[in-house]
Amino acid sequence: MKNIPWQERPADCEDVVWRYSENPVIPRNLTKNSNSIFNSAVVPFGDGFAGVFRCDDKCRRMNIHAGFSEDGINWRIENEPIAFGPDGDSLAHSDYKYDPRVVQIGDKYHIQWCNGYFGPTIGLGYTYDFKTFYQSENAFLPFNRNGVLFPRKVNDMYMMLSRPSDTGHTPFGDIFLSQSPDLEFWGRHRHVMSPSPFEDSAWQCMKIGAGPAPIETPDGWLLIYHGVLNSCNGYVYSMGAALLDLDEPWKVLYRSQPYLLSPQRDYECVGDVPNVVFPCAALHDEETGRLAIYYGAADTVTGIAFAKMDELIKFVKENSCV
Amino acid sequence: MKNIPWQERPADCEDVVWRYSENPVIPRNLTKNSNSIFNSAVVPFGDGFAGVFRCDDKCRRMNIHAGFSEDGINWRIENEPIAFGPDGDSLAHSDYKYDPRVVQIGDKYHIQWCNGYFGPTIGLGYTYDFKTFYQSENAFLPFNRNGVLFPRKVNDMYMMLSRPSDTGHTPFGDIFLSQSPDLEFWGRHRHVMSPSPFEDSAWQCMKIGAGPAPIETPDGWLLIYHGVLNSCNGYVYSMGAALLDLDEPWKVLYRSQPYLLSPQRDYECVGDVPNVVFPCAALHDEETGRLAIYYGAADTVTGIAFAKMDELIKFVKENSCV
Amino acid sequence: MKNIPWQERPADCEDVVWRYSENPVIPRNLTKNSNSIFNSAVVPFGDGFAGVFRCDDKCRRMNIHAGFSEDGINWRIENEPIAFGPDGDSLAHSDYKYDPRVVQIGDKYHIQWCNGYFGPTIGLGYTYDFKTFYQSENAFLPFNRNGVLFPRKVNDMYMMLSRPSDTGHTPFGDIFLSQSPDLEFWGRHRHVMSPSPFEDSAWQCMKIGAGPAPIETPDGWLLIYHGVLNSCNGYVYSMGAALLDLDEPWKVLYRSQPYLLSPQRDYECVGDVPNVVFPCAALHDEETGRLAIYYGAADTVTGIAFAKMDELIKFVKENSCV
Amino acid sequence: MKNIPWQERPADCEDVVWRYSENPVIPRNLTKNSNSIFNSAVVPFGDGFAGVFRCDDKCRRMNIHAGFSEDGINWRIENEPIAFGPDGDSLAHSDYKYDPRVVQIGDKYHIQWCNGYFGPTIGLGYTYDFKTFYQSENAFLPFNRNGVLFPRKVNDMYMMLSRPSDTGHTPFGDIFLSQSPDLEFWGRHRHVMSPSPFEDSAWQCMKIGAGPAPIETPDGWLLIYHGVLNSCNGYVYSMGAALLDLDEPWKVLYRSQPYLLSPQRDYECVGDVPNVVFPCAALHDEETGRLAIYYGAADTVTGIAFAKMDELIKFVKENSCV
Amino acid sequence: MKNIPWQERPADCEDVVWRYSENPVIPRNLTKNSNSIFNSAVVPFGDGFAGVFRCDDKCRRMNIHAGFSEDGINWRIENEPIAFGPDGDSLAHSDYKYDPRVVQIGDKYHIQWCNGYFGPTIGLGYTYDFKTFYQSENAFLPFNRNGVLFPRKVNDMYMMLSRPSDTGHTPFGDIFLSQSPDLEFWGRHRHVMSPSPFEDSAWQCMKIGAGPAPIETPDGWLLIYHGVLNSCNGYVYSMGAALLDLDEPWKVLYRSQPYLLSPQRDYECVGDVPNVVFPCAALHDEETGRLAIYYGAADTVTGIAFAKMDELIKFVKENSCV
Amino acid sequence: MKNIPWQERPADCEDVVWRYSENPVIPRNLTKNSNSIFNSAVVPFGDGFAGVFRCDDKCRRMNIHAGFSEDGINWRIENEPIAFGPDGDSLAHSDYKYDPRVVQIGDKYHIQWCNGYFGPTIGLGYTYDFKTFYQSENAFLPFNRNGVLFPRKVNDMYMMLSRPSDTGHTPFGDIFLSQSPDLEFWGRHRHVMSPSPFEDSAWQCMKIGAGPAPIETPDGWLLIYHGVLNSCNGYVYSMGAALLDLDEPWKVLYRSQPYLLSPQRDYECVGDVPNVVFPCAALHDEETGRLAIYYGAADTVTGIAFAKMDELIKFVKENSCV
Repeated sequence: MKNIPWQERPADCEDVVWRYSENPVIPRNLTKNSNSIFNSAVVPFGDGFAGVFRCDDKCRRMNIHAGFSEDGINWRIENEPIAFGPDGDSLAHSDYKYDPRVVQIGDKYHIQWCNGYFGPTIGLGYTYDFKTFYQSENAFLPFNRNGVLFPRKVNDMYMMLSRPSDTGHTPFGDIFLSQSPDLEFWGRHRHVMSPSPFEDSAWQCMKIGAGPAPIETPDGWLLIYHGVLNSCNGYVYSMGAALLDLDEPWKVLYRSQPYLLSPQRDYECVGDVPNVVFPCAALHDEETGRLAIYYGAADTVTGIAFAKMDELIKFVKENSCV
Repeated sequence: MKNIPWQERPADCEDVVWRYSENPVIPRNLTKNSNSIFNSAVVPFGDGFAGVFRCDDKCRRMNIHAGFSEDGINWRIENEPIAFGPDGDSLAHSDYKYDPRVVQIGDKYHIQWCNGYFGPTIGLGYTYDFKTFYQSENAFLPFNRNGVLFPRKVNDMYMMLSRPSDTGHTPFGDIFLSQSPDLEFWGRHRHVMSPSPFEDSAWQCMKIGAGPAPIETPDGWLLIYHGVLNSCNGYVYSMGAALLDLDEPWKVLYRSQPYLLSPQRDYECVGDVPNVVFPCAALHDEETGRLAIYYGAADTVTGIAFAKMDELIKFVKENSCV
Repeated sequence: MKNIPWQERPADCEDVVWRYSENPVIPRNLTKNSNSIFNSAVVPFGDGFAGVFRCDDKCRRMNIHAGFSEDGINWRIENEPIAFGPDGDSLAHSDYKYDPRVVQIGDKYHIQWCNGYFGPTIGLGYTYDFKTFYQSENAFLPFNRNGVLFPRKVNDMYMMLSRPSDTGHTPFGDIFLSQSPDLEFWGRHRHVMSPSPFEDSAWQCMKIGAGPAPIETPDGWLLIYHGVLNSCNGYVYSMGAALLDLDEPWKVLYRSQPYLLSPQRDYECVGDVPNVVFPCAALHDEETGRLAIYYGAADTVTGIAFAKMDELIKFVKENSCV
Repeated sequence: MKNIPWQERPADCEDVVWRYSENPVIPRNLTKNSNSIFNSAVVPFGDGFAGVFRCDDKCRRMNIHAGFSEDGINWRIENEPIAFGPDGDSLAHSDYKYDPRVVQIGDKYHIQWCNGYFGPTIGLGYTYDFKTFYQSENAFLPFNRNGVLFPRKVNDMYMMLSRPSDTGHTPFGDIFLSQSPDLEFWGRHRHVMSPSPFEDSAWQCMKIGAGPAPIETPDGWLLIYHGVLNSCNGYVYSMGAALLDLDEPWKVLYRSQPYLLSPQRDYECVGDVPNVVFPCAALHDEETGRLAIYYGAADTVTGIAFAKMDELIKFVKENSCV
Repeated sequence: MKNIPWQERPADCEDVVWRYSENPVIPRNLTKNSNSIFNSAVVPFGDGFAGVFRCDDKCRRMNIHAGFSEDGINWRIENEPIAFGPDGDSLAHSDYKYDPRVVQIGDKYHIQWCNGYFGPTIGLGYTYDFKTFYQSENAFLPFNRNGVLFPRKVNDMYMMLSRPSDTGHTPFGDIFLSQSPDLEFWGRHRHVMSPSPFEDSAWQCMKIGAGPAPIETPDGWLLIYHGVLNSCNGYVYSMGAALLDLDEPWKVLYRSQPYLLSPQRDYECVGDVPNVVFPCAALHDEETGRLAIYYGAADTVTGIAFAKMDELIKFVKENSCV
Repeated sequence: MKNIPWQERPADCEDVVWRYSENPVIPRNLTKNSNSIFNSAVVPFGDGFAGVFRCDDKCRRMNIHAGFSEDGINWRIENEPIAFGPDGDSLAHSDYKYDPRVVQIGDKYHIQWCNGYFGPTIGLGYTYDFKTFYQSENAFLPFNRNGVLFPRKVNDMYMMLSRPSDTGHTPFGDIFLSQSPDLEFWGRHRHVMSPSPFEDSAWQCMKIGAGPAPIETPDGWLLIYHGVLNSCNGYVYSMGAALLDLDEPWKVLYRSQPYLLSPQRDYECVGDVPNVVFPCAALHDEETGRLAIYYGAADTVTGIAFAKMDELIKFVKENSCV
């Protein structure tokens, strides 16, 4: 992945994760009717990149759109939401779609999103070309959010993380893992991790949720996730990371006690929902160890942050609260 | 089922469902350490009946116990909770068990209950003899309650109703149906029914949940269920019934607008949780059309109510709010 | 009013208000489909009495029914709710009707109730004969409850008490007075009284609401009202009384610091809503000073309590927290 | 109205409503003791403009002040709140005044505001000259906000919109219409519109309230209003518009599904209440079709936005969710 | 203490604590104006017994009254609340008094109660004769309830248990211990015990509070206490016991996992606050080991329960969740 | 105190308190691991200044650190939290420490902070040199915050202000005063002041808490404090001042009705908790009357504001709401 977006760490910065200097890379009004574009997922595609983007329109309806980029920074996003098909069927009940993730398994690009089916649950679909999209059965019963599929089967099972929720601005939330032989029927649910005690790691003390698809490393599956603190003036969303066991990925080996990124810049602190940093996708160049993390900022725009894989893994191991 | 418990309708009663005159049939302290016995499930077994009983002990811990009866009225309940096994395995994480249902499919008696696994979800197990019990994987992710299995496969799929919930005294709740080829992996989730609008049928306007295993009839699956009204002094649980399509049981054909039974007797109105009528099991004698419904009263004791199948179906059809 | 229901105070009772020994006088299931009959209004009519009754049916829908009695104790209540008319018009939007009051002005019997029009508000109507009923415009915007009309114009204005509320089990509530030249347009709203400080009179510290139509006495308008205390296990509704200025009835002259009646009997403490005593009507025989107060008990049945007017007024004056 | 404030739409803007480039036009500290000036009402007056302004002082007390301007942009606001009179009377109970609207009918300038009378309700008053002000009876019982009078009688009745509320930061709210022959007594209340379903138009899914006085057009009464979305970090107030039937103005003909303006600029997103755009007044030049909308920003300052009447009406019709 | 009230355990009862057959011993209306008498404290006094009683009057005001009895069962309670003095001083700010405890140290009878001083806190006073009463400084800042003094100094310090609370129906609560050289200044606060995890002992999973003054035994200080479960229909108060270290009484040696008594009889389940058993005092005859526990029932009346000290201690040790 | 930080009031400013032009003086990331530095306390020390600083680390754990400065503006803050000792003892249970105050009495620098001991309470400690620190007993039971010690004994008693709280983002709060002969045992608790009525002074209508140690003046103890308003989008913290009686400091002589400083600048409005101005320390040069107030801004950084003592006292007296 030679064209992974990249900037070296600024001289005055010692953090293991740092921001792209030209953030936000996707402004709120990139498409004709968009109110905001954030919490979006990108993957390598062809010579460049493709992605599925959460675009709230000016009715504040939430939907997901396809988009394309040569460099991962400058994006063309479709004006119209993804139309799943090709033929309409009884599955098509979807009051809203938001917070997509995309992961490639074989020649399919699998999409997971929060799907409105009598409450939020995990919608599933796929595409081969980001032009024609197919919707599958919802993975779970409501109420659920932040469904994230692993990039390969483990022990011959598809594996998906999710965060059981309630009907509103859920004030709790653990990450679970569910397994499926076929991406249609799910079982063998395992608890993965809970919010931290306030005294240990307050930025992730109210709820947590998986971010980008886990990245396989010799040290385990690298899971970048978000954690939420409930201040007297609202929720604060920050970013952390964990390492999960390669074969039994519901076992947490390490987990960052400090956050990796918290809302501190204006575009992260001011917007439709202030104080939100919400990672949904990551590009990884194995050769150089470069990592580019896409994250929603203030539920309004999209930014990129960078890290080096070896530094990041070292940091998580040395600052673990497991 | 010749020995089904039965009493004819009292002369002064015109209701389609009427109470057993000697209610409650199971007192709160039937077993040595029980605080209360209610929300329990019984099935024909051998020449008599067996069942799985919710017994809260005097620590107010919730667990399920096996029990036996010749006549369905006088019960012997084991002092010790069911020990699932035969060998302990990693599944055995169960903080609590409550509100069991039992249904026979082939030679197996399948048990569903609310299982404490990082929150309430649907636990599954089975027995052949009510002596040795086996626990399977939880069907769903938390948070869920009132999992109820159909007594046979439909379209070659096991079918289970459930009521997605939250972590506490959930103030909302719809009934969904999920399908499984093997009782281990679940999918094809379908919405079945929601609480009624307050103006139409207030006794079921806050949440609803399936009761006994659905009973197959020529008119559809008869589903006895509970509905909840939120008064200024707490929840009121009443009993109603619906008819579901035989082949696509997520389709509701009829649904009782009036309740069939509401908490009106002292043992239903006074107890650990006042004003609760909560059906969990029903015996049906096809020959005579007699129906004996077991229900928890005031979350403290267990009562029986009777109905005639033809009258009940007629009533639901003629008083339907679908 | 010779046939006013009456029983002398029991020998062992020193209270200013005492219960009828055969309470409840109206059971929950008096009509064919009734779940409960309570919070109802009666007036002298012909040689006997007529009334408008809150009957919740077995769908727990709330509606109002006409009823008749020779002695004020034994009642015949219509099976069908009142059908306002005689011709249907655009006013007829009424999701539900409950808690009626009736007052005679001239030859009209005016009915006020809580009317469901995009939330609870004060519905108005009238009848000459308790057979044909006419609905007028709602008096106020939502959200309001406990509208109570005075039995005559004061200063050439119709006067109505009400208790502005919110959309649910309102945890606050003051009594206001509104004026109208024509019973259609309302203004000159005046604050009458607030809940008491907890330290002064806790039974009426959360909300209060007018009960029967005020009774004119030389000492002022006698207003019997309910007050609510919020215990850790729900609302407790009790009964008190106040004296309002004859000419400026928004001025409170006296107000009972102790309750006159609180839920203490089984039929007041156990039922659909435990611990409720809720007065909606009073018969007054001026000659003997006898007072018969009709009240809902536990939101389930209807009871009668008695008092002597001179004793009651003396009590309110001597135990006033104004 | 030749001197209506005006700026053409910026070249890079395609929106039907656009901001004045020098916003905010009224800073928070324009008067000696003001903490903030926002949610204010202006009208043509003499050769220029006059208005009534919500000025919160540094005690954070809410009151309304008179102000004057030649150009509608640069304002002189009185240091002292409006003193209603000329003689003090018993009506003068007013704990606070906020969110004024002004409309001219004949030679009177009618003022409506949220008036503190045992809770928020709709206060009414008038002036001929913005020097001497007269207070009338409150229009309604508490709890109410956003009372907005039509600029003429319709069917010989004064018409007023309002939004029944509760005692705090009301989490619900529909717009109603009330009628009065004399501005003192009000009745014939009609429901106008409710918040939208979340799935249709989320920016207005929690509550809505009328903004400037409706503007008469051949297509109906143009009602500019605000809608509120409840994010996990607080309420977000945006602006929309509707067209009401000319003769039966409680009938909504069209209603904008997308917002017209939402809080996106710093002065709208940062302040005493972040993320608020709240319109209270509009100037309309019939000849040119120019529209200048005054709106409070972040409950702190006042801005102006522009639109062309024909474009706006076209937009509402073509993007209607009715 | 020969005249300690006593009844042997009924033949059909195996519980370690059993009820007096003539419960309730104090009816709600024993004094002239009492609405209810409960949560009261008794001690041996002269040849009989004296006590301080919580009497809510018919204004539902909470206050404490002195009372006397020869046999501990039949009581004379003063009509007037205790008037602390002898001279009024600036301390006398007391909005309400409730839930008294009494303990004898030397010749003083020390009284602790919940005192209304800008919120609930622990009031202190004493008497020598139950005729003249002296009020001391409040022990703590608000918000606190259930202050219970030890019957002697430990390590030369007065010791007091209490349960820090909030301003309302507190949904949490741990027991703490505070120390004082002089009963005026308090410090060295130590945490004693928390509610149990729901899975271990649900009857005490929401809050707990000390009951009677601890009783010194060779096995430690016997602390009878109440625990609260939050059902969907309100709080349920039950009774348990613990053994505290004799020298460091903030250390819990044993603690009953099952409750000793829970609300099951009508007078415990029906009343002003349903489902409450609340112990405030205990008489102990060392010679026979008899224990008579006084407890409030349904916040309405007072009952007695019995136990044998050796059995009780054995039970707590053998059923401990520490 | 010649080197007190100082800047004259800007020419265009008429406020009695004004900001330092180079605010914030302490950025969020001054120490290696700090997420934010705010709500901190400074005192003169040697030739310069020392202080105790609230530093939240990147785990969002709250702790207090020592720091030093020559000019009171540029600070060196220790990377490691204060380690109380010198020997660890059983007191050392402290889940977190935040919001410190420091006051010099004799040669000791006394530190008060919010200490996590089974909930927030007031921790106490001291140092002679800001190198070695000693922890004392917690002053009070939980739940308490904002403990502030007077700079000398009054009537031979140590005096401490505090704000009893609950377990979360407490929505209420009065200031109380407690007394101690020895800083270990506390009693003689007195109520000092409550939040203001919303109508009088809304910025301090929900809760209030003491800020810097009171400053003795001939006009009384000058208490700078914070007040909180609950907007629909969260809490807003502003700064005010009061004058307390010199001998009976629980008596409030004057209290500022307007705020002295409210969050208006970007660094006060945007950050981890938007809209917070929170004073914790003040330097006072008696000779010149200069006052430098240190305050936390947006729970993220630290700013300084200036005032002249005579002007400030005059302002409080002339704008008092007592």
